[in-house]
Amino acid sequence: MSDITALVSKLSGLGFNDTPVEHAPVENVEQWAEALSTVSGLPAEYTLTKTLIFKPKQPKSEAMAPVVVIAKHDSATNSKAIGNELKLKELRFANDDVLTDMFQTAKGSVSPFALANVSKENIANVRVVVDKALLNDSTGNIAFHPLTSSHTVFVSAATLQSFLKAVEGLTHVTEMDFAADAETATVAKAEKKPSAAAAAAAASDEVAGVSKGGIDVSKDVDFPRWYQQVLTRSDMLEYYDVSGCYIVRPLAYFVWQQIQEFFDAGIRSLGVKNCYFPMFVSSKVLEREKDHIEGFAPEVAWVTRAGSTELAEPIAIRPTSETVMYPYFAKWIRSHRDLPLKINQWCSVVRWEFKNPQPFLRTREFLWQEGHCAYLTEKEAMVEVYDVLTLYRRIYEELLAVPVIEGVKSDKEKFAGGVATTTVEGFIAATGRGIQDSGADRPKLHVHQTSWGLSTRTIGVMVMTHGDDQGLVMPPRVAETQVIIVPCGLTAKHSEEDRRVVSDACLNVEARLRAVGVRAESDLREHYTPGQKFNHWEVRGVPIRVEIGPKDLEKHSVMTARRDTFVKAPVALEGLESSIQLLLVTIQNDMLVKARKTFDDRVKIVLEWNEFVPVLNSKCLALIPWCEREVCEDQIKTRSSRDSLGDEPEDEKAPSMGAKSLCLPSKQPTNPPIVHGETKCIQCGENAKRYALFGRSY
Amino acid sequence: MSDITALVSKLSGLGFNDTPVEHAPVENVEQWAEALSTVSGLPAEYTLTKTLIFKPKQPKSEAMAPVVVIAKHDSATNSKAIGNELKLKELRFANDDVLTDMFQTAKGSVSPFALANVSKENIANVRVVVDKALLNDSTGNIAFHPLTSSHTVFVSAATLQSFLKAVEGLTHVTEMDFAADAETATVAKAEKKPSAAAAAAAASDEVAGVSKGGIDVSKDVDFPRWYQQVLTRSDMLEYYDVSGCYIVRPLAYFVWQQIQEFFDAGIRSLGVKNCYFPMFVSSKVLEREKDHIEGFAPEVAWVTRAGSTELAEPIAIRPTSETVMYPYFAKWIRSHRDLPLKINQWCSVVRWEFKNPQPFLRTREFLWQEGHCAYLTEKEAMVEVYDVLTLYRRIYEELLAVPVIEGVKSDKEKFAGGVATTTVEGFIAATGRGIQDSGADRPKLHVHQTSWGLSTRTIGVMVMTHGDDQGLVMPPRVAETQVIIVPCGLTAKHSEEDRRVVSDACLNVEARLRAVGVRAESDLREHYTPGQKFNHWEVRGVPIRVEIGPKDLEKHSVMTARRDTFVKAPVALEGLESSIQLLLVTIQNDMLVKARKTFDDRVKIVLEWNEFVPVLNSKCLALIPWCEREVCEDQIKTRSSRDSLGDEPEDEKAPSMGAKSLCLPSKQPTNPPIVHGETKCIQCGENAKRYALFGRSY
Repeated sequence: MSDITALVSKLSGLGFNDTPVEHAPVENVEQWAEALSTVSGLPAEYTLTKTLIFKPKQPKSEAMAPVVVIAKHDSATNSKAIGNELKLKELRFANDDVLTDMFQTAKGSVSPFALANVSKENIANVRVVVDKALLNDSTGNIAFHPLTSSHTVFVSAATLQSFLKAVEGLTHVTEMDFAADAETATVAKAEKKPSAAAAAAAASDEVAGVSKGGIDVSKDVDFPRWYQQVLTRSDMLEYYDVSGCYIVRPLAYFVWQQIQEFFDAGIRSLGVKNCYFPMFVSSKVLEREKDHIEGFAPEVAWVTRAGSTELAEPIAIRPTSETVMYPYFAKWIRSHRDLPLKINQWCSVVRWEFKNPQPFLRTREFLWQEGHCAYLTEKEAMVEVYDVLTLYRRIYEELLAVPVIEGVKSDKEKFAGGVATTTVEGFIAATGRGIQDSGADRPKLHVHQTSWGLSTRTIGVMVMTHGDDQGLVMPPRVAETQVIIVPCGLTAKHSEEDRRVVSDACLNVEARLRAVGVRAESDLREHYTPGQKFNHWEVRGVPIRVEIGPKDLEKHSVMTARRDTFVKAPVALEGLESSIQLLLVTIQNDMLVKARKTFDDRVKIVLEWNEFVPVLNSKCLALIPWCEREVCEDQIKTRSSRDSLGDEPEDEKAPSMGAKSLCLPSKQPTNPPIVHGETKCIQCGENAKRYALFGRSY
Repeated sequence: MSDITALVSKLSGLGFNDTPVEHAPVENVEQWAEALSTVSGLPAEYTLTKTLIFKPKQPKSEAMAPVVVIAKHDSATNSKAIGNELKLKELRFANDDVLTDMFQTAKGSVSPFALANVSKENIANVRVVVDKALLNDSTGNIAFHPLTSSHTVFVSAATLQSFLKAVEGLTHVTEMDFAADAETATVAKAEKKPSAAAAAAAASDEVAGVSKGGIDVSKDVDFPRWYQQVLTRSDMLEYYDVSGCYIVRPLAYFVWQQIQEFFDAGIRSLGVKNCYFPMFVSSKVLEREKDHIEGFAPEVAWVTRAGSTELAEPIAIRPTSETVMYPYFAKWIRSHRDLPLKINQWCSVVRWEFKNPQPFLRTREFLWQEGHCAYLTEKEAMVEVYDVLTLYRRIYEELLAVPVIEGVKSDKEKFAGGVATTTVEGFIAATGRGIQDSGADRPKLHVHQTSWGLSTRTIGVMVMTHGDDQGLVMPPRVAETQVIIVPCGLTAKHSEEDRRVVSDACLNVEARLRAVGVRAESDLREHYTPGQKFNHWEVRGVPIRVEIGPKDLEKHSVMTARRDTFVKAPVALEGLESSIQLLLVTIQNDMLVKARKTFDDRVKIVLEWNEFVPVLNSKCLALIPWCEREVCEDQIKTRSSRDSLGDEPEDEKAPSMGAKSLCLPSKQPTNPPIVHGETKCIQCGENAKRYALFGRSY
């Protein structure tokens, strides 16, 4: 809130003398007009606006050149027309990263003032388009949200222009004459609200500058943008001002705590104990296990300074803890009597990747558990690795309702120095790419060391697997709120007493459900319609909505709506607890069954090389008879990327990558079976050993 | 284990040709001789040794000059004599930090080879004393533990000397003739073991070079060293090669998880939700709340490089998360409808202190929870702060059996920008110093923000409060093992069947106790005597030992021994579960009662300034009628440090510090009461407002 004060002083420096007006937060132009109508002391006439940020299609080598459009709220800001005017190709709405990283703002807060936040090196690339209708504005009061949608400032066209001139380094400012597609562009205060036509036009426009509660892009049409919207609008995640880092909000952290609870109990029964090793690693220790650390070296973050003191030796932040822990293992294991040694830690690790970050799936800091154990024999070590793999499979399947395939990694893909790397392989149907979590055994001089890790990427996989165009779909077992209870069916004709009866019934149902361990909540907020509440909880993926109205109560029942299927059904108040519990179990099972069907449909047995790339290109994984030779895997990678060159990647950021082996599944196909000495590898023609699962992967 | 291989190649470079011999790990010279007697292919004669590291008393401004003594195992290495020889004052055994930081070794692993690990800048300050008896050694085989006590190398006197010459930069090497206080210094292999006299002499010597299971220093005599020994020998904590960082081992992490479980349930019922914010903070955000961050600035760790890429802007690691979170609070709180906002996170934070680190109490990275909430009104905020304070008090008192005093901080001591800082004040009787955890309310423009944190320092306080000269004393509620069951009373005359009956009885008792939720474990290890097992679990502080022998079984009972009081009592097998559960509750209560008595005895009501400093010097806290003025607090600090100048600080590292106010206790003394307008502040004579607790503090 104190940012507003900072802004005020910043604005006065730029010649703005009025302080921002505070009002109810708004989500669209209609609400904005309405909110302003309740505030006293406003100008008699003012003009509402929208600020949009676009991104053109550009070669990766070029610095990004975003386009900021400042327009009247009802101007027809056609992205093709703007692109033509600026000679830029394929303008699309910029994603949240751009808003956060470059403009230090976020959806719902975008305004011309965000230009002042752009760094000197970036501002030269920014193009600004100003609507001539604003420059010709006759009200003298152009309205912008200064920082949040709960505040408004009013400025004159002249002030707007002087502000744009005052932004240091900003050179590309273009004026455009948008054909207004509504009758009036000025909202006179006397009218109280803009015309219905203007409001409808604004609502149908995909306005990046106005925060929206719902999801406005389809999962099938623009998957990356859908994923971002689902995460942020469900309040699972917030973008952060250090690139590649994200805030894990309570809704997502709850999922992580459910995973922790399940896994912690599981490994405790295996005799694994929790501990905590420091996050810092001396360079000497980090470099001790060169082989192991090689892959991480370019991604290690180094602390070189404390306060204003340069450290004598830079200190690394752990990318993983093998090198941190093993010297102490050597100390603690003085004879076979000290074996097995089994420890685990819950912590965050840092891998400063320069590739495009993606929430949960590729982040510079992430939460995980890492288990590290030492055994006397390979047999014991492998038993443990498979026990842990089973826990991982159960987390995916039983908690997150995400099907996986168990197996081992090929020689090329296994961990450095390991005898065996086991894996559970998931699959994102929307992109056709695989995703994995693994455990491995590494034999050492006298002991067999195992390590295994599972991270918050599981949450990303869950969202991608189940989410739909309405938002998140949460599996009941990990949903913070399993049942949301909404009072319905109350109209102006109902009395206060009627309302009270319905509220009490909601609270009563909530209490009954909570008493049997169901995480139920009532949404008794005023000033929101049932429809707004439905949307609110749909975006957040709550598995069951219970609607209670006077008519339901007359019938001694409530109405239930499933989030996963949208199926509605009445449920009797009598025995409600067990009905709801059963429904939660049913939803959990149905979600897994549905996801498994999608998975199974996308895993194709491929017996001819010709079919291999087309199968991948149809966003499927391929199960092929394979020779298991590393050289052959390299060839497959090369041939599948070359062969697919004509192919359109599924999102701008994905390279047209070749396929790699995901795993050698424990459960092998039997139709046709591999006949040793007869079945050939489909790529090289050598004898095939087993079926291997190949695909593109995260 | 692979370190041994590295060592072998290092040693061969120095002219050592034999590889180390591996044997059972040993804890003293008697075991060493015995272990070697079982290894074949050894030299016919060899000499056992000890390597000791001392530290003289020096001005803080001087570089530390440790003394490494290499001697025959039974030479009388009198520290006074060595000090006289080297003209150094008050030699004491170096603590674990020195072993870890300077010599990169640890107790049980110290040998002359550790000299090769000392950095160039430090080696010039190291003084080495070599026992002439070794230089005159006639066996040609002087035995050292190369890295761990499970390995031995044999070198000649000439090789030892050439090694010392080969250590680059080592200039101070002195020969000394220790009067051997045992008959023979050479262990002939034919003898199988050294003479009893030699073994006894070695055992009574405090040998830093030999790892010991028990605690060999008294809590009253050398508290800092006692604290280190208890932590490391109980396996709670391991020293780490980055100074100021420590490994929290399972025994200690279990305590933390118990605290987490209790506190998490507590704050959940207050409506607080868990989340996770990134550990990285941009410099811009860090500096935004200048007031708040000022105190932390010199301790902030900065990441400036990733892999080999210099970052454009250095990025800080959070020292706390207020500055990280508040910009997002401003975004999420768009109107009063979004209040209260209550979040908490479990994470680690980094404060790169340059003061002397101390495990759990002052570490550069530590685990904690930090709660940050925003409320519409001060009243709501303060209710929450007190609710959380109650949870903190309950963690200290109910879980850790550590008494505390609740109160508020004085204006001088409260958090920057806060209206009120509440606190629970603990007290370390052994040092007479206070220790605190706090919560605070900070009013902002439109909201009241609260923050509150509790860290792993709680574990250090628990250890300091309850530990004794036998080691850790764990409060039952947080003890990973609450009951250890040890088979006893079996002698050579007992049959295998007798042994089996006793083992089965142990396992049966274990199973019965576990069935009712008691964390019981049987210690059925062979090759250890009951006495060794008793020591093992005593050091680790297990609250109840259950001894089961043939005679106990005849009487249908078991013998119990309490760790806190050492009281032994038989308990009937019938109804054992409830007897043990009751005993655990009794121990938990008794520990708190005992600690509270110590606490109360040490909190003195002081009504005359003359008594103030003497009370502090007798390791007490003082409750004084006080005016509550900041200027007076400054005067108290000055006068109490100046007045106490003649005073010996309780450990070398503690400055002779002045007293500060710890809190204004919620529960005020009533005898005598403060009479407003009459009772005067004992320092300045102004009117006293309340009693305030003053003391020296961690």
